[in-house]
Amino acid sequence: MAGLSHFDRNGKAHMVDVSDKPVTARTAIAEGQIKMTTETLALINDGRANKGDVLGIARIAGIMAAKKTAELIPLCHPLPITKVALDLSPDTTLPGIRITATVKTGGQTGVEMEALTAVSTAALTIYDMVKAVQKDMEIGGVRLTFKDGGKSGRFENS
Amino acid sequence: MAGLSHFDRNGKAHMVDVSDKPVTARTAIAEGQIKMTTETLALINDGRANKGDVLGIARIAGIMAAKKTAELIPLCHPLPITKVALDLSPDTTLPGIRITATVKTGGQTGVEMEALTAVSTAALTIYDMVKAVQKDMEIGGVRLTFKDGGKSGRFENS
Amino acid sequence: MAGLSHFDRNGKAHMVDVSDKPVTARTAIAEGQIKMTTETLALINDGRANKGDVLGIARIAGIMAAKKTAELIPLCHPLPITKVALDLSPDTTLPGIRITATVKTGGQTGVEMEALTAVSTAALTIYDMVKAVQKDMEIGGVRLTFKDGGKSGRFENS
Amino acid sequence: MAGLSHFDRNGKAHMVDVSDKPVTARTAIAEGQIKMTTETLALINDGRANKGDVLGIARIAGIMAAKKTAELIPLCHPLPITKVALDLSPDTTLPGIRITATVKTGGQTGVEMEALTAVSTAALTIYDMVKAVQKDMEIGGVRLTFKDGGKSGRFENS
Amino acid sequence: MAGLSHFDRNGKAHMVDVSDKPVTARTAIAEGQIKMTTETLALINDGRANKGDVLGIARIAGIMAAKKTAELIPLCHPLPITKVALDLSPDTTLPGIRITATVKTGGQTGVEMEALTAVSTAALTIYDMVKAVQKDMEIGGVRLTFKDGGKSGRFENS
Amino acid sequence: MAGLSHFDRNGKAHMVDVSDKPVTARTAIAEGQIKMTTETLALINDGRANKGDVLGIARIAGIMAAKKTAELIPLCHPLPITKVALDLSPDTTLPGIRITATVKTGGQTGVEMEALTAVSTAALTIYDMVKAVQKDMEIGGVRLTFKDGGKSGRFENS
Repeated sequence: MAGLSHFDRNGKAHMVDVSDKPVTARTAIAEGQIKMTTETLALINDGRANKGDVLGIARIAGIMAAKKTAELIPLCHPLPITKVALDLSPDTTLPGIRITATVKTGGQTGVEMEALTAVSTAALTIYDMVKAVQKDMEIGGVRLTFKDGGKSGRFENS
Repeated sequence: MAGLSHFDRNGKAHMVDVSDKPVTARTAIAEGQIKMTTETLALINDGRANKGDVLGIARIAGIMAAKKTAELIPLCHPLPITKVALDLSPDTTLPGIRITATVKTGGQTGVEMEALTAVSTAALTIYDMVKAVQKDMEIGGVRLTFKDGGKSGRFENS
Repeated sequence: MAGLSHFDRNGKAHMVDVSDKPVTARTAIAEGQIKMTTETLALINDGRANKGDVLGIARIAGIMAAKKTAELIPLCHPLPITKVALDLSPDTTLPGIRITATVKTGGQTGVEMEALTAVSTAALTIYDMVKAVQKDMEIGGVRLTFKDGGKSGRFENS
Repeated sequence: MAGLSHFDRNGKAHMVDVSDKPVTARTAIAEGQIKMTTETLALINDGRANKGDVLGIARIAGIMAAKKTAELIPLCHPLPITKVALDLSPDTTLPGIRITATVKTGGQTGVEMEALTAVSTAALTIYDMVKAVQKDMEIGGVRLTFKDGGKSGRFENS
Repeated sequence: MAGLSHFDRNGKAHMVDVSDKPVTARTAIAEGQIKMTTETLALINDGRANKGDVLGIARIAGIMAAKKTAELIPLCHPLPITKVALDLSPDTTLPGIRITATVKTGGQTGVEMEALTAVSTAALTIYDMVKAVQKDMEIGGVRLTFKDGGKSGRFENS
Repeated sequence: MAGLSHFDRNGKAHMVDVSDKPVTARTAIAEGQIKMTTETLALINDGRANKGDVLGIARIAGIMAAKKTAELIPLCHPLPITKVALDLSPDTTLPGIRITATVKTGGQTGVEMEALTAVSTAALTIYDMVKAVQKDMEIGGVRLTFKDGGKSGRFENS
């Protein structure tokens, strides 16, 4: 399958052989958002000030999900992640929460999937905690914004 | 935290007590999409016809992720899922792939999170398998479209 | 092995057959503590007021660990947990943090192990987050304080 | 949060960036105990001689839990563990079982959490297997006794 | 795909809908074997008498694997297993170890896969522990020997 | 236990210390088969041509299982797998499916168990998907055929 490295010459899926790739420092940054009503966003913001910490829990869920990426994505290589950080910022113009995840490793393949999985899972966790008050929230804009390290070099998507 | 059942009166997160809820038949349907270029979509379609089956693998990843939902979403109850089905349809007008997941259970809480997690993971899996040819794909429109069963009744979001 | 139900007549370990036990409402409460210096405890308390939420993260870790109990404890039955709540209270007389976990299910065996696992993992998570400032903290007093439901009836250990 | 490296300047939890730390040989030793009655301890000892091997099973549970540490402790880095050994010794003066776990890795962070998780899970497994005859056993004294490797150097806690 | 219920009318894989199946008592028994030289078998037998308990560890691995079946087999339903027992018997005529696993549940689908997964994993665990002395052992004869409960009724394969 | 490195001098199981072993390129190849009737094999072959892809799903299950090996096999070291590929070939002379798995890593221990686990899980997955039409299929011939890298050198078992 021309261009799709996850398939061999006969179209069989495999986990690509990266044995001969050098171990290099790699970084990936992904972002996404969950849109909700102004009222729902206010509830989350109130919670942060006083009582329940929706965004703190979503951050932890995102970090833990980054570590589970190779279990979720069938052809993804297991990697020794060396950093995961998530930023979750309320944005009243969406209205909703903007999520950014930064992941690093020293490995033979990149950590794009780890960053994207962290963003998605943080968004899903927000959905779960807020769905009692709003069911039609929408997760979107999940994409890779930065990647560095490895043969394919730097990628920026602003 | 008014309205957010995942927090107690003092704002502490907990897994909500559903012990006294009846076991009822529950269904949830979620959808989402991954956008890509026409060229990338053509590669996926070619693969289906001949060689590598991107969508078949994403479908399996989505089904398996539905079973992992309670591991990923911190306050989600473990549930005995009784059905998971995913539909992945190429759409040249996006261009990209439209994903729908249907999940059922007989349980004490709903399967919205399972359906949303299946959609998200299927989309991430497509991203992983195609990222060698396009890195700026975008996952979006991830939302609940249908829910039935349980006290809150039927929800439709067309 | 007289009295130890996890072994058959020949001393072979097995997961005990609970097929014929009725599904009943079951609750278990466990407690434990992690002792530290007054200075370390003050750091955690400062964090709660301003910035980093050690106890909030430990609570989430305890809830998620309760769901993993049957993966960790070899002969433990998987159970559909219906509630998990943790209380983490700073106690200047220890000095340290007192942890209590309450778990419920409707099932054929009890949730003692889930409650004890939640307490232990919450304590380990506190250790992890604070170990940069104190390495000789100690986890102790991990025990079951209450159990109800099932054939063996109510147990209280005050 | 001064001193607590698991939080950034704004008090947000993150998995600390260890990308630039050297890979060094690291060892950690943790210990703990589970106290029980003399009669319960005798049952375990009888089992070892003849029939059911409570301590052998707890040892395996501890080894397997060490490998799951990064799944349980939210901000813990995944590490390629190179050794896990547990010693479980009956002690009639407690009375109960004393547990020691030794873990090694070649990595960028230490294996303290792996050793402590192994001890805790071995103790919980003993509790599970013996709880049919005694419910008020208590797990305690769980602490790090030795650590070597990495920037912070050797730590001993006798 | 005529006859293969894991595929819908269009040949798409799905987790079959069992929502309307009754919860019934179900049992499955599977067996298998690992063949080795007489010398290797003697080493295992010696170990049981004195020192290392290969078969005891393989039994635990089989029980734990039964609980992981729905994570390993993509289209398998998660089930609340109510019993798992393994028998591992040295057989000098093979020479090798014969393995039998019995699994029960009260659920909407059977536990054939759980029993077969327990047997396979126990055999793999024996291989792992003995491979330092013999690498050309062979696992075989893994099959279902008994099944009861559910619509398809009793199956025996002697 | 003479010769069995997974036990210490006193016969206690441990995860062997590989800390001082060099990181080398390692490969393992395992094979196995699942036997079925000619009619069942024809159903699988028909599916590949038109509709349901049994072998494609089994391949994915095998790849994902290779990544779970250290979770399944108690004393197995976690390893950063760098390649997994499975070949599944219908063989009308069995009749059935022949399975081969190739796994690579750069690590301190070999990947024999990963290759054997991939083969076993792929075979179990085929069983699961086809069991509606035939329950007496048999998995066998699961063995290591090639191993290279590490102190013990090359092993071939044709």
